[in-house]
Amino acid sequence: VSPIGLTTEPSRSDAEELDALDPLGASRDLFEIDDVGAIYLDGNSLGRLSQLTRARLADAVDEWGRRLIEGWQDWYRLAVHVGDRLAATVLGAGPGQVAVTDSTTVNLYKLADAALAARPGRRVIVGDREDFPTDRYVLEGLAAARGAALRLLESDPVEGIDLDALAAAVDRDTALVCLSHVNYRSAARAEMAAVSELAHRKGALMLWDLSHSAGAVPLHLDDDGADLAVGCTYKYLNAGPGSPAYLYVRHELQRQLRQPIWGWFGQRDQFAMGQGYDPEPDIRRFLAGTPAVLGLVAVDAGIEPFAQAGIDRLWAKSQALTSLLIQLHDAWLAPLGCRLASPRDPGRRAAHVSIGHHEGWRLCRALIERAGVIPDFRAPDVIRLGPAPLYSRFVDVWDACDRLRRLLQSGEYLTVDASRRPVT
Amino acid sequence: VSPIGLTTEPSRSDAEELDALDPLGASRDLFEIDDVGAIYLDGNSLGRLSQLTRARLADAVDEWGRRLIEGWQDWYRLAVHVGDRLAATVLGAGPGQVAVTDSTTVNLYKLADAALAARPGRRVIVGDREDFPTDRYVLEGLAAARGAALRLLESDPVEGIDLDALAAAVDRDTALVCLSHVNYRSAARAEMAAVSELAHRKGALMLWDLSHSAGAVPLHLDDDGADLAVGCTYKYLNAGPGSPAYLYVRHELQRQLRQPIWGWFGQRDQFAMGQGYDPEPDIRRFLAGTPAVLGLVAVDAGIEPFAQAGIDRLWAKSQALTSLLIQLHDAWLAPLGCRLASPRDPGRRAAHVSIGHHEGWRLCRALIERAGVIPDFRAPDVIRLGPAPLYSRFVDVWDACDRLRRLLQSGEYLTVDASRRPVT
Repeated sequence: VSPIGLTTEPSRSDAEELDALDPLGASRDLFEIDDVGAIYLDGNSLGRLSQLTRARLADAVDEWGRRLIEGWQDWYRLAVHVGDRLAATVLGAGPGQVAVTDSTTVNLYKLADAALAARPGRRVIVGDREDFPTDRYVLEGLAAARGAALRLLESDPVEGIDLDALAAAVDRDTALVCLSHVNYRSAARAEMAAVSELAHRKGALMLWDLSHSAGAVPLHLDDDGADLAVGCTYKYLNAGPGSPAYLYVRHELQRQLRQPIWGWFGQRDQFAMGQGYDPEPDIRRFLAGTPAVLGLVAVDAGIEPFAQAGIDRLWAKSQALTSLLIQLHDAWLAPLGCRLASPRDPGRRAAHVSIGHHEGWRLCRALIERAGVIPDFRAPDVIRLGPAPLYSRFVDVWDACDRLRRLLQSGEYLTVDASRRPVT
Repeated sequence: VSPIGLTTEPSRSDAEELDALDPLGASRDLFEIDDVGAIYLDGNSLGRLSQLTRARLADAVDEWGRRLIEGWQDWYRLAVHVGDRLAATVLGAGPGQVAVTDSTTVNLYKLADAALAARPGRRVIVGDREDFPTDRYVLEGLAAARGAALRLLESDPVEGIDLDALAAAVDRDTALVCLSHVNYRSAARAEMAAVSELAHRKGALMLWDLSHSAGAVPLHLDDDGADLAVGCTYKYLNAGPGSPAYLYVRHELQRQLRQPIWGWFGQRDQFAMGQGYDPEPDIRRFLAGTPAVLGLVAVDAGIEPFAQAGIDRLWAKSQALTSLLIQLHDAWLAPLGCRLASPRDPGRRAAHVSIGHHEGWRLCRALIERAGVIPDFRAPDVIRLGPAPLYSRFVDVWDACDRLRRLLQSGEYLTVDASRRPVT
């Protein structure tokens, strides 16, 4: 019997029954979904459009056209206002600690640089080889510019961060530990409280990338000892391609930290436009330039379904979806040459499941072109299947695995053109 | 006789005649304008919404909802694609030198830091006290972080940069000269070729902020010796509140310069997601994080009217609009206690006109609340009137000056509530 109470080879009617019993089933109706279209299992890369987001964006365009410059009376507060809603609904953080602004990359740069400056004399940044590229590149660039060393963990590509290895890597010379809460390839989930505590024990600051975590996994930034965090809003938070990212800075640290990009939205009494940078004493000092208003409106709309569904219920559904996926993998796909590239232990896993195969890229293209299933691919050979609990169904998972099985059985995937390169 | 061929006190029918003869009059119809609404003279702060932009944004939302992750096949090229269009239409630059990305503040930071790194041993940045706050703050922050000195010109608040004073400030220790092409308060316009040449003579790099210039004044970045430039798209370019900014890096410099925020959109063969940052050899190395797709679509739409009207014709109209405004100021407003806070010489002026008055803020509020005119305010006492040649009419200028005159004559402006603080 599996964690979701099914026999080892669930049938399609088992999946249908799970959907019928799903208390969150109706949240799918919030989204614009063409039910004759493909099965979308890439909400962990780019989330779906909701009707509310479309409406709010149209309203925001109206507001720009109508109010023009007077709109700024409200817009200039949006970064913190939407940040507070995100903090309360998704991040497990009290108000005044989150701002929605810039890209994940730029926010990571700002906070990591601020952390280095707050630990003068310490010369090491600890990261992870398995982390998302932009995180590694940003840290590499900062290390090079500040004369620091970047020490990368060699985590297991499937199981993620090993606490003993991390303990060995973090020392009294470590200024900053910067890790993803959830690994972008394997969905391995770090133990936030334990890792944060380990960094703190050596006097380092702890910066989390929540991009594959927020909106899928319950987060408790305040309770779990995060000092700093960043993340994107276009995955599980459904705010659209390239929507603005967020940053979190724990209250107690805000006055001690100074980020490097001294822009006018961080300035105290900003519209006095005075001489000399004198940053706000609060989260606003981590802002830089003029905020992207349409993007902020989309983030605000994206938060709404989470406020309604509740992250704990979404997480319970997510675990059931990924458990079903792994059962089907074991029953059907493993015998056909696939391997599980995500942690088997549900306590170590987040909301997507990766499946490795030596022809992973070709299989990924075949799923899209021949089987009406949209996953994504991660080099060298991993297919990511990300059911988003707000709108993905158990039958979607069942059908996707079934179609993947058939492609493997028939060998049809060998006939697709795999010359096109992965994008995203 | 004025530069536009009018007697010293033009009548409203003179203004109507200028509108009737205006070859660009029809471009107003591209924008969503409620003709019973206020006269909007703040397009230099936030441009108007066009029908095309509304439609393109709606299409982009559709595309997100429909194509989902597959949309990135096209979106990932947008930053450079839209940059090339902006370069050709507005900036006077050849292809491959402009990217639309991030905010003006972040772009200024990236390019200024890259310039400092490219001039090792040189320890001075030259800026201007009169420049927009975010520019000064960014340079101040970089100077503090890199052990450099920020040397600020004390330019005349009305006339702007003095070439002799600049020549005295730039020396062999100057790494970077960073100035606005057009001053945000006075609209004083710098001589780009002469200033750039002056910086180059001492071996410094030249970085221009074009925010108050692009879309209003003809630019010739390639010909006028700009090394680097940044600017926003929400003013004359009409791309909406907080739309993404752009950056320009001259071809010859691209391989020598390395910006500090090493993000995945700057990485060669980005989607291989490999170890070690290895930036693209071209303009893409100045990108950082995931691009704001809706914002980029709005910038692309915003460029369209410029492609149709042509920047030279817009500039001719702009000069006629500001000349009319100054004539009316001289005839009506100066005798009532106003002073011209923009250069009188049209060869030194850009597209807006600032009028100083010791009760400037109160007058600004009175124009908005009592007279149906939207200008903006710049501390300490300046009202900015920015007729945008794509959609502002000569009668708008005439009526705005007439209403300002009446407010001053009646003293009604003294009765408005001026306790509210300026925002934007």
